[in-house]
Amino acid sequence: MSDKRAIIIDTDPGQDDAVAILAALGAPQLDVLGITAVAGNVALAQTERNARIICEWAGRPDVPVYAGAAAPLLRPLVTAEHVHGKTGLDGVPLHQPEMPLQAEHAADFIVTTLRERPAGTVTLCALGPLTNLALALRMAPDIAPRIREIVLMGGSYFEGGNITPAAEFNIYVDPHAADIVLRCGAPIVMMPLDVTHKARSSAARIGWLRALPNRAGNLAADCLTTLERYDVQRYGEFGSPLHDPTVIAYLLQPQLFGGRQVNVSVELAGELTLGATVIDWWGISGRAANVHYLTEVDADGFFRLLADCLSTLP
Amino acid sequence: MSDKRAIIIDTDPGQDDAVAILAALGAPQLDVLGITAVAGNVALAQTERNARIICEWAGRPDVPVYAGAAAPLLRPLVTAEHVHGKTGLDGVPLHQPEMPLQAEHAADFIVTTLRERPAGTVTLCALGPLTNLALALRMAPDIAPRIREIVLMGGSYFEGGNITPAAEFNIYVDPHAADIVLRCGAPIVMMPLDVTHKARSSAARIGWLRALPNRAGNLAADCLTTLERYDVQRYGEFGSPLHDPTVIAYLLQPQLFGGRQVNVSVELAGELTLGATVIDWWGISGRAANVHYLTEVDADGFFRLLADCLSTLP
Amino acid sequence: MSDKRAIIIDTDPGQDDAVAILAALGAPQLDVLGITAVAGNVALAQTERNARIICEWAGRPDVPVYAGAAAPLLRPLVTAEHVHGKTGLDGVPLHQPEMPLQAEHAADFIVTTLRERPAGTVTLCALGPLTNLALALRMAPDIAPRIREIVLMGGSYFEGGNITPAAEFNIYVDPHAADIVLRCGAPIVMMPLDVTHKARSSAARIGWLRALPNRAGNLAADCLTTLERYDVQRYGEFGSPLHDPTVIAYLLQPQLFGGRQVNVSVELAGELTLGATVIDWWGISGRAANVHYLTEVDADGFFRLLADCLSTLP
Amino acid sequence: MSDKRAIIIDTDPGQDDAVAILAALGAPQLDVLGITAVAGNVALAQTERNARIICEWAGRPDVPVYAGAAAPLLRPLVTAEHVHGKTGLDGVPLHQPEMPLQAEHAADFIVTTLRERPAGTVTLCALGPLTNLALALRMAPDIAPRIREIVLMGGSYFEGGNITPAAEFNIYVDPHAADIVLRCGAPIVMMPLDVTHKARSSAARIGWLRALPNRAGNLAADCLTTLERYDVQRYGEFGSPLHDPTVIAYLLQPQLFGGRQVNVSVELAGELTLGATVIDWWGISGRAANVHYLTEVDADGFFRLLADCLSTLP
Repeated sequence: MSDKRAIIIDTDPGQDDAVAILAALGAPQLDVLGITAVAGNVALAQTERNARIICEWAGRPDVPVYAGAAAPLLRPLVTAEHVHGKTGLDGVPLHQPEMPLQAEHAADFIVTTLRERPAGTVTLCALGPLTNLALALRMAPDIAPRIREIVLMGGSYFEGGNITPAAEFNIYVDPHAADIVLRCGAPIVMMPLDVTHKARSSAARIGWLRALPNRAGNLAADCLTTLERYDVQRYGEFGSPLHDPTVIAYLLQPQLFGGRQVNVSVELAGELTLGATVIDWWGISGRAANVHYLTEVDADGFFRLLADCLSTLP
Repeated sequence: MSDKRAIIIDTDPGQDDAVAILAALGAPQLDVLGITAVAGNVALAQTERNARIICEWAGRPDVPVYAGAAAPLLRPLVTAEHVHGKTGLDGVPLHQPEMPLQAEHAADFIVTTLRERPAGTVTLCALGPLTNLALALRMAPDIAPRIREIVLMGGSYFEGGNITPAAEFNIYVDPHAADIVLRCGAPIVMMPLDVTHKARSSAARIGWLRALPNRAGNLAADCLTTLERYDVQRYGEFGSPLHDPTVIAYLLQPQLFGGRQVNVSVELAGELTLGATVIDWWGISGRAANVHYLTEVDADGFFRLLADCLSTLP
Repeated sequence: MSDKRAIIIDTDPGQDDAVAILAALGAPQLDVLGITAVAGNVALAQTERNARIICEWAGRPDVPVYAGAAAPLLRPLVTAEHVHGKTGLDGVPLHQPEMPLQAEHAADFIVTTLRERPAGTVTLCALGPLTNLALALRMAPDIAPRIREIVLMGGSYFEGGNITPAAEFNIYVDPHAADIVLRCGAPIVMMPLDVTHKARSSAARIGWLRALPNRAGNLAADCLTTLERYDVQRYGEFGSPLHDPTVIAYLLQPQLFGGRQVNVSVELAGELTLGATVIDWWGISGRAANVHYLTEVDADGFFRLLADCLSTLP
Repeated sequence: MSDKRAIIIDTDPGQDDAVAILAALGAPQLDVLGITAVAGNVALAQTERNARIICEWAGRPDVPVYAGAAAPLLRPLVTAEHVHGKTGLDGVPLHQPEMPLQAEHAADFIVTTLRERPAGTVTLCALGPLTNLALALRMAPDIAPRIREIVLMGGSYFEGGNITPAAEFNIYVDPHAADIVLRCGAPIVMMPLDVTHKARSSAARIGWLRALPNRAGNLAADCLTTLERYDVQRYGEFGSPLHDPTVIAYLLQPQLFGGRQVNVSVELAGELTLGATVIDWWGISGRAANVHYLTEVDADGFFRLLADCLSTLP
């Protein structure tokens, strides 16, 4: 057992997932116990393959990668190929990964790890729809009090939605899984659009990664450049919000972020608002706070931290 | 028929309704054809009485006042006495009004007026729940294309809700009425919390009204001071959002405000999000734009305009 | 004021509405104060015209006919032209009616009549979607305690739905109106599919009407023969359920029917069950009984009563 | 591999579950591969213990018993202790079981068994809420096409609900699990209240079990007598519906039952109708048939079959 913080990354790469995974693998303070793939940005066959490709980019074929849910608990899968491209990593040259996919189911790996490791030591980093986490929590409710913290990218309040006018993509894709996770009782930190839209990848900031002398910096810069293209088209000239890497940055330097301890609940019944995260910012609902909900970020500090992490990789 | 802009004010006074009505009666460009009362901030018995009191404050007992719906279309009435006090106008000395209540139902007055006046000349200003307007539209669908414009205070997007975490009070109280109004086809301008929270009544701004040499300025200042007390307790030292008078200000100086033409729909089915206004800010829903949704205001300009209007009153 | 029972018939004719109206006009115990038309089986333009045609069939151009709502409160209009044909009275020769349509709105007529007549003397017979009744109740809540009884055709429990697997047509078309009516506090009798499916128009029973020596009997027989054709196709050789005339029969001979005093509520939120009537047959919901819900009928007695009523007409 | 039909019984005993399990263990044509317990009639701690007690009653401590979900996927657990008593088997003398509980999770056992056994040979018999089956299907979607048949007790159409006016207990407790199971694509047979309310345990029929010369007959008679007491109180003197054993009887003599191939969907959004099974009896929804839905039973034949099965036990 090392002094490093033990994490499992649950993910649906996705270019921004890729940058987050690279940053985690590059961060000397983190011990990535495994990566669990879920359907989301693209289908499971792509996300588990991409997770392995990214490990190989980082020179870390030793990190075990597990496939999990190919579809949400109840709803049909919605993907975001219009953002991430057919492969999920469009814009970056992809190779056929050599490292194997683990046979165990992602949820089983999460359960086993949380049961075997000392209670309160394993952090779950969720970068996609929360299906795998929800399955693990339902198969083994005993793991909830053993989780150190769940840090997840998802939800929105002040920014409205990005997949529907009311809902953010990760929560919308599997709102029932999000509901299970949000009510599980473990400490939860949320990185919603409210914070990621303040962490925009300007040309200058992408330049910091591109300027790194290693391959990882270039790959990350390629990833962000691709996302940039999509978002400029949509939001205009503001630069692209950088979503998933905020989760890793929070683990390393939480002081970069600001927010509030609030109740967050997911709308499961609304026709127009399915998957909306209802944030009780002013504490008027009577529902107990269950989430540390972040809305502020030091964007330059965040990108500098990313560059630092990536700099240790090949 | 004068050169003035003909308006009907539908209202549930409420201190901020009172300031709005005073401003409208003081504005030389507006012809207030009638005031229709609805249950909302307080019960109908109070709102129709308050409407008459306010007309008498303005020296305008000739303006006809009509009582309308005592309850929302489908849901039980929710009031806001915690904000406005038992009378709806707590903090201001109230007298027994001498002018009579009209016998006609508010919705019938709206229908008759729109049918009698030339098409496209009558503007509906809605300061409370939209029950009266919805009843008029359902009793007489032929009036919809005759409406010049509906300017209403209600809804929220970037600010979240004020009565529940997801819903603004006026829309939440009668979401079904709001749905009917938003889909009626007439031009609609919405003054949501997003704009009213930027129109805060600081001590300086209240001072501008208090400094007026007439009684109306003092009464308006009393109204705002009462609201101030409630909001400071809740939101801290930022000053109180001033809601309903923005509707009148928009009629007089629309250039004080900024916004976007978008689709606005009301959630009727959600458990957590009932009455939430779903704003398609980025145009991703495929639903046609039906509302000019305002988010920006020149707050000093707005308060100065209010003072100007009030200065013409006794 | 006569000794007869005063009724208003709210209707969307419809062949079975036609038979019900003829029966009511023929029944010496009933005083039809007026007929109010609503959109339902076909559009309002057809239903108000058909109501006038039917009055002329009965030699009663003196009965005032009013047009009401052209669409449900909140939902888009769904019609049943696949059952009733384009005119609503397909299968019967139609003439251009000479009697005029009244200028007053149907809901206004209901309100005025209930306010003018002694409290507890006027019965509302509802044969279509409940939009007109709901509008009247919302415009004038004071009428609810003045209603003697609302007898309506609508809903289903043991039989499932007929327009969706869960919902009966009249309730489904305007579930929000049904909700308003069911919660209004007046005594309510419901004739659901559970009872109308036991009142089937066999060849023998249609023959009783056809055998009448007057024109009305023949017209009624024509109406039932048309419906028969539709239902045989759907349900097989069981004969066609006769819906709306049960309402009139209940006024005349309630002892022909059997049922239970229960709570009936309408589902407004369900995706699959919108407009379903939830019948608390076993009293397990804790909701107070609000409806006398009928499930049994003496079918032969019912058809004989119809023939008796029709026999007094020209 | 024997000639017997291989089944897994998923159950929440419950006195009627007990009779079903005894019948299955007594039936020479069935090979009970394992029993999986779920929370439902009572909590999981009771249902898994009861399952073991019942195996020991049958002299079959070799049948492996697995514990599964202690709570539904999304909703809080609702139990039926008012029917079954605190233990779930009130009315029958209970001992401390000696046979162990298996360590594996119920859902894992279902997955493993379906993957190991030849495709199309294993039948799942579900007598309680469908949480375990849903978890298995979501953890391993590949098992769906390997299932021979799912025969489940649950749902209602003509009979209305028994836990709410609209919903049957097993489906209501975990409607989301039911939704997952009903849409999984495997052949499904449903035993709803419509059929179980025609399989009533009269004194005579209970007598047939009591008259058996073995202990199992007496235990089964004790179980039914306890249920009888609850239901007589509720439904009057009609005898108690016998629910779960119909599932086992169907496997042995399907010709005892009659029904229709229809679409069955579960309402997940309705306020009043949550967990209602929407049966498209007349094929008007356009949704494809997914269930053989039973409504008829030869009740005497069914009870005689039960007695035959029980007669082989100690």
